[in-house]
Amino acid sequence: MAADPRQAPATPPQDDPARELPQDELAALDAHWRAANYLSVGQIYLMANPLLTEPLRPEHVKPRLLGHWGTSPGLNLVHTHLNRVIRARDLDAVCVWGPGHGGPAVLANSWLEGSYTEVYPDVTRDAAGMALLFRQFSFPGGVPSHVAPQTPGSIHEGGELGYALSHAYGAAFDNPGLLVTCVIGDGEAETGPLAASWHSNKFLDPVNDGAVLPILHLNGYKIANPAVLARLPEAELDALLRGYGHEPLHVTGDDPEAVHRAMAHALDTALDRIAALQDAARTGGATDRPRWPMIVLRTPKGWTGPAEVDGLPVEGTWRAHQVPLSGVREDPEHLRLLEGWLRSYRPEELFDEYGAPRAAVRALLPEGRRRLGANPHANGGLLLRSLPLPPLERHAVPVDKPGSSLHEPTRVLGALLSDVMEATAGRRDFRLVGPDETASNRLEAVYARTGKAWQAETLGTDEHLDRHGRVMEILSEHTCQGWLEGYLLTGRHGLFSCYEAFAHIVDSMVNQHVKWLRTTRGLPWRAPVASLNYLLTSHVWRQDHNGFSHQDPGFVDHVLNKSPEAVRVYLPPDANTLLAVADHVLRSRDYVNVVVAGKQPCFDWLSPEQARAHCARGAGLWEWAGTEDGTRAPDVVLACAGDVPTQEVLAAAQLLRRHLPSLAVRVVNVVDLARLLPAEEHPHGMSDFEYDGLFTTDRPVIFAYHGYPWLIHRLAYRRAGHPHLHVRGYKEIGTTTTPFDMVVGNDMDRYRLVMDVIDRVPGLAVRAAAVRRTMEDARLRHHAWIREHGTDLPEVADWTWDG
Amino acid sequence: MAADPRQAPATPPQDDPARELPQDELAALDAHWRAANYLSVGQIYLMANPLLTEPLRPEHVKPRLLGHWGTSPGLNLVHTHLNRVIRARDLDAVCVWGPGHGGPAVLANSWLEGSYTEVYPDVTRDAAGMALLFRQFSFPGGVPSHVAPQTPGSIHEGGELGYALSHAYGAAFDNPGLLVTCVIGDGEAETGPLAASWHSNKFLDPVNDGAVLPILHLNGYKIANPAVLARLPEAELDALLRGYGHEPLHVTGDDPEAVHRAMAHALDTALDRIAALQDAARTGGATDRPRWPMIVLRTPKGWTGPAEVDGLPVEGTWRAHQVPLSGVREDPEHLRLLEGWLRSYRPEELFDEYGAPRAAVRALLPEGRRRLGANPHANGGLLLRSLPLPPLERHAVPVDKPGSSLHEPTRVLGALLSDVMEATAGRRDFRLVGPDETASNRLEAVYARTGKAWQAETLGTDEHLDRHGRVMEILSEHTCQGWLEGYLLTGRHGLFSCYEAFAHIVDSMVNQHVKWLRTTRGLPWRAPVASLNYLLTSHVWRQDHNGFSHQDPGFVDHVLNKSPEAVRVYLPPDANTLLAVADHVLRSRDYVNVVVAGKQPCFDWLSPEQARAHCARGAGLWEWAGTEDGTRAPDVVLACAGDVPTQEVLAAAQLLRRHLPSLAVRVVNVVDLARLLPAEEHPHGMSDFEYDGLFTTDRPVIFAYHGYPWLIHRLAYRRAGHPHLHVRGYKEIGTTTTPFDMVVGNDMDRYRLVMDVIDRVPGLAVRAAAVRRTMEDARLRHHAWIREHGTDLPEVADWTWDG
Repeated sequence: MAADPRQAPATPPQDDPARELPQDELAALDAHWRAANYLSVGQIYLMANPLLTEPLRPEHVKPRLLGHWGTSPGLNLVHTHLNRVIRARDLDAVCVWGPGHGGPAVLANSWLEGSYTEVYPDVTRDAAGMALLFRQFSFPGGVPSHVAPQTPGSIHEGGELGYALSHAYGAAFDNPGLLVTCVIGDGEAETGPLAASWHSNKFLDPVNDGAVLPILHLNGYKIANPAVLARLPEAELDALLRGYGHEPLHVTGDDPEAVHRAMAHALDTALDRIAALQDAARTGGATDRPRWPMIVLRTPKGWTGPAEVDGLPVEGTWRAHQVPLSGVREDPEHLRLLEGWLRSYRPEELFDEYGAPRAAVRALLPEGRRRLGANPHANGGLLLRSLPLPPLERHAVPVDKPGSSLHEPTRVLGALLSDVMEATAGRRDFRLVGPDETASNRLEAVYARTGKAWQAETLGTDEHLDRHGRVMEILSEHTCQGWLEGYLLTGRHGLFSCYEAFAHIVDSMVNQHVKWLRTTRGLPWRAPVASLNYLLTSHVWRQDHNGFSHQDPGFVDHVLNKSPEAVRVYLPPDANTLLAVADHVLRSRDYVNVVVAGKQPCFDWLSPEQARAHCARGAGLWEWAGTEDGTRAPDVVLACAGDVPTQEVLAAAQLLRRHLPSLAVRVVNVVDLARLLPAEEHPHGMSDFEYDGLFTTDRPVIFAYHGYPWLIHRLAYRRAGHPHLHVRGYKEIGTTTTPFDMVVGNDMDRYRLVMDVIDRVPGLAVRAAAVRRTMEDARLRHHAWIREHGTDLPEVADWTWDG
Repeated sequence: MAADPRQAPATPPQDDPARELPQDELAALDAHWRAANYLSVGQIYLMANPLLTEPLRPEHVKPRLLGHWGTSPGLNLVHTHLNRVIRARDLDAVCVWGPGHGGPAVLANSWLEGSYTEVYPDVTRDAAGMALLFRQFSFPGGVPSHVAPQTPGSIHEGGELGYALSHAYGAAFDNPGLLVTCVIGDGEAETGPLAASWHSNKFLDPVNDGAVLPILHLNGYKIANPAVLARLPEAELDALLRGYGHEPLHVTGDDPEAVHRAMAHALDTALDRIAALQDAARTGGATDRPRWPMIVLRTPKGWTGPAEVDGLPVEGTWRAHQVPLSGVREDPEHLRLLEGWLRSYRPEELFDEYGAPRAAVRALLPEGRRRLGANPHANGGLLLRSLPLPPLERHAVPVDKPGSSLHEPTRVLGALLSDVMEATAGRRDFRLVGPDETASNRLEAVYARTGKAWQAETLGTDEHLDRHGRVMEILSEHTCQGWLEGYLLTGRHGLFSCYEAFAHIVDSMVNQHVKWLRTTRGLPWRAPVASLNYLLTSHVWRQDHNGFSHQDPGFVDHVLNKSPEAVRVYLPPDANTLLAVADHVLRSRDYVNVVVAGKQPCFDWLSPEQARAHCARGAGLWEWAGTEDGTRAPDVVLACAGDVPTQEVLAAAQLLRRHLPSLAVRVVNVVDLARLLPAEEHPHGMSDFEYDGLFTTDRPVIFAYHGYPWLIHRLAYRRAGHPHLHVRGYKEIGTTTTPFDMVVGNDMDRYRLVMDVIDRVPGLAVRAAAVRRTMEDARLRHHAWIREHGTDLPEVADWTWDG
């Protein structure tokens, strides 16, 4: 046992004698815990002799020892105790395993309760299945060492740390009957995303949402260091957790029996309190913010493992983090220690001669869908209903003629979302999340149907705060993302609206979510979930208030590096195309969809029917905007993707029509960026036949793109016409200035595009030299005007399409 | 005044009568505060008539009203009071302005104290300068609306929120004489990075580090919502802050005089406590972790601004966030309100007839380098010393013949870093930061010279914890990054070692840092600072323990989207090249350098001299590895970047030499990725002449790249030989498996590379069909072997270079 002086005796069961744990339950808890520990160690080490029916020999041990033992006994303890209360109270519960490196633990528990065999029939609940369970772990072609999509009952990949608690809250929202337990490791607790997510309890509605029970597991160490929270005096930690709005229950110890008693008591106390708080809000009409209980569980890292190896303490220290005995195949002493460790769990008491868990181990297991590995909320696609979406025509803006009216696209989208909010008022399976930007992003029509979730104090001057609201705003992109992921993975729908530049804050989170989706596509038992939809607005070209720090269009680049089967990027150029794209992404499954759209007034280019057809194609020719006559190939293709580039391209087309009327100009608009990829690289990729037909193979293509120009090259470099492709876009020239000055600064303005055409169409340089000078003059005029007036040139500010 | 019922009377000055604020100081504080408020409003609104010497007319007002008023009066209050204590106590102090959207406030204060005019001589401290100060704000060609690099005294861009406190700690480390005040907005306080960074106080050494004084400013609202912390009952907030390890001092109010008194008292109390805590540690030998004071300042948002506009409350609500009066040019009532608002500060009492601040306003200003806008720590390059680096030969590994020995590159680097730690033991201007991975990343040689910073409890089983250590480990990449940025911007050096995949956690932070560096390059008064150096290790190819969740090589892609003048990426292929690169980046200035290097045993390819020469070139021909004879162009170029790709390319070259001895193979290794870019796109870019000489214009180039293959295309698409470039790399095929299985899965293995050569060298397909089948067979043999044994094929595991 660890010599950690902090390991005071476990909190004794308190006064209530009814709370005394019956001896048979104690025995069953301990048997189950020992079985789970045995199976965890077995997964890390063994490839044969799973029941130790013969003395352990080197060849029974895997050649590569991979995995994380340190956190596993703690997770096993939690799972074992959750089984007891789920069964005793018939709870509908899931658990988010934050210290997900402890994959062996959750796999062991799933195998013990039978849920593992149900989805992986080869891994039977007997000796043969146990052998397979052990062998496959961290083995090539086998299963990951973490709690992962492959793990039954999981909605949370335990690799990258920080998101456990926000995932748990996401799962609890709008699931009033659900208990979401969440184990938070003391390592993970140091991360920013986790630290922020404690305040999620100010957004949890005790009436319409389920409960979240955080279990902060302090085993004291990370990879090589003590954990900060584990080294706070208990009073200081207690103050912190009360400051987070919780009532902590402390369970501390290293004596299994005492910890079992204390843990059972703490869980019962917590669940009673949760029930009372929910009852007070649901039937008692209480409206004060509940102080939800939580558990602080302090047990040694690598508990029950080797106390000392090679003369150094292991149990209770960071040395227990991964594989405590590393030389088992070579070192007889290590082999001996491993065998002793495994036998210390008394496997013969736990498994019968066929390798099946004995009745004592199974005594407290829940049944059917109540098992943590079989709860359908953790395979949320099973519960997913189609989102009721209004007909697009209801909110589409009328467009008789391109460019004759202006709308703020996101405001138009807000009306559609308002309908969705109304249609889901009873079902409560749609939420809008964002970092305090719903109104700023002009989606505030939703407030007619629902308010902003808020359980903290409300003042008379507040607006739209709503104890039962389904708009989620907190100034933490991490928390927003975590909430939404948890909500989607438990079978609901949502949209994340975010300033474009700050989507990068969740780059690493979207990585993990895409990896999750990619992996689940290979798991037939995982039902598809609703896509994670981003609306990136307040984008790079319109940061009038904020300037350079708020200018970054690179989230799209980041997402397009990920598994193509799971990512989609859309740049609708106006209000109706935004509606069409939104309709599509809100119906889709298992994708990460990134939609980039402006909130500023924007010309309406396409009618609803045109918009729908254009978005279905993803990229298309805008005949009305060009000057082709159909008798010959165009002289030049002007391509655009994004609202601001589209406006500049149309303005350039208009200038060309006026100044060079004999030039055959084709205008192509791209909504679905992946269309540019080869068909074999992305499911949306165009065939070369389509691409060449649209862009030609030999004419100059001047492409105005919303973001970093080289992204277009990266997508299109295999095309025959690539040598003729010239892309304009954002090249990190940013400041606080006017919208048109931004495009001039980045060489994407209409005048520059016309100059590009003149420079690249063979023979035009001489013939159109005067036009080129006119364009240069316009840019000079712009520079002079803006420094003087601080506004855009009237000819630009008042520009309209005259096509 | 706001009707917020939370605005209780300000905390009265407490018992100590010596603490009573003298009436003249009170008057001076208030005059300065009013002056700063006047100047803040003026910047947002006025482009003429700065002193209101004539009645305000529409044409005096800017045509575009941009900026953030809401936070400005609070920042002005803090700055005003800091002036008093800096002067009274002769403090060496800087301030990090977290609510940096309040740019007008910090600019106003810098102008008032004269530091602004010193760096921007046109903006004189008189009416003409005031007019310029007003006009330039948020005006095209002017200055950003945020606290930004352009702002004297700032080390913190106030655009993206979350990093104020970690920046403050970074500034305080190893600056024992410095006081770093840090204003944290209640919006920013909701972010994850800020929430995590409160625990930085467990890492602050009271002996060798300066003090950090957090000032949590609760003005109650964000853009459109109440702030969470502002709506906690005071006892709950107090518990939270005590849980963070602080002793909070609460200042609450909306009556200026009362708030002045309370704030002065709180600041004096806090500074006395800081002095006492430092004295106890420095001379009294105290070793217990100090509970540092902090201030909670609760004042209305938009305090002193219009109470009501168009019938809606503004002061004290979210409506004060940006521009409270938006229609001033059009609406006479708004114009009248603006004039009344400006005159409410009684500008005639504050500025003389020439527009200069009167003596009453200037009475409490510090002087010279004590002014917050002139403290050299906030322009850290002024204080920067060259880092003492050992001669590379001291740690280089001997290489008589390529590939005849193996080393763990990061372990070799650790020895160099240990020397740097020793050489800076007295100067204390170098720190190593990382999320609990220094030992995991095999840099632990540094522990011979310094330990891990740690002020919390220490147990007997701990190792390398050190109250005065300069290795910084916390499981928060955000905090690591913020600490290092603050440390570098105040004129010191450092290295951030991080798992490659999890560098994405700080994507948005590195964005802001690169933007900062880019901007400072245009500011002659900003002295260059040490580069921000990343060592990305535990990389995508060697995630044996963790698998898919830990595999992401895209941080490089992200960084290469940023301003080319400020970013550099290096992929040293072995130990000696890593040393050469490290030597270079640690000497460099004003860059973000990303170094990707493995920690696993890796063949040594280059001698120290060769390594230095190769890294200086950045990319070069490895004659010894190829089979060119110099008489003709090669048949094929095998290129590589990264340690694993280099090994596979060399193994492929060896296979080609054996199986197709007449083929002329060239091997090119790329260390400095930007070399692939055109010279006009990046300062390190190769000319076409160089590129074509190295890669040819017409021979197939098979490029094995460490990361996403399309990045190489994005860099090289303009090259003449691009149509012949074929790149292999990581394409999101990941799992828990062996190293070689990873490269096979991603088609970057030696056998696949040989097949690529056969497929692409004209005429080889037929001639080498048998060789191709041999390669295919080897891949099939691999698949069979690994499923059976869980280890790599012996011929791969035992491979050596025989060149």
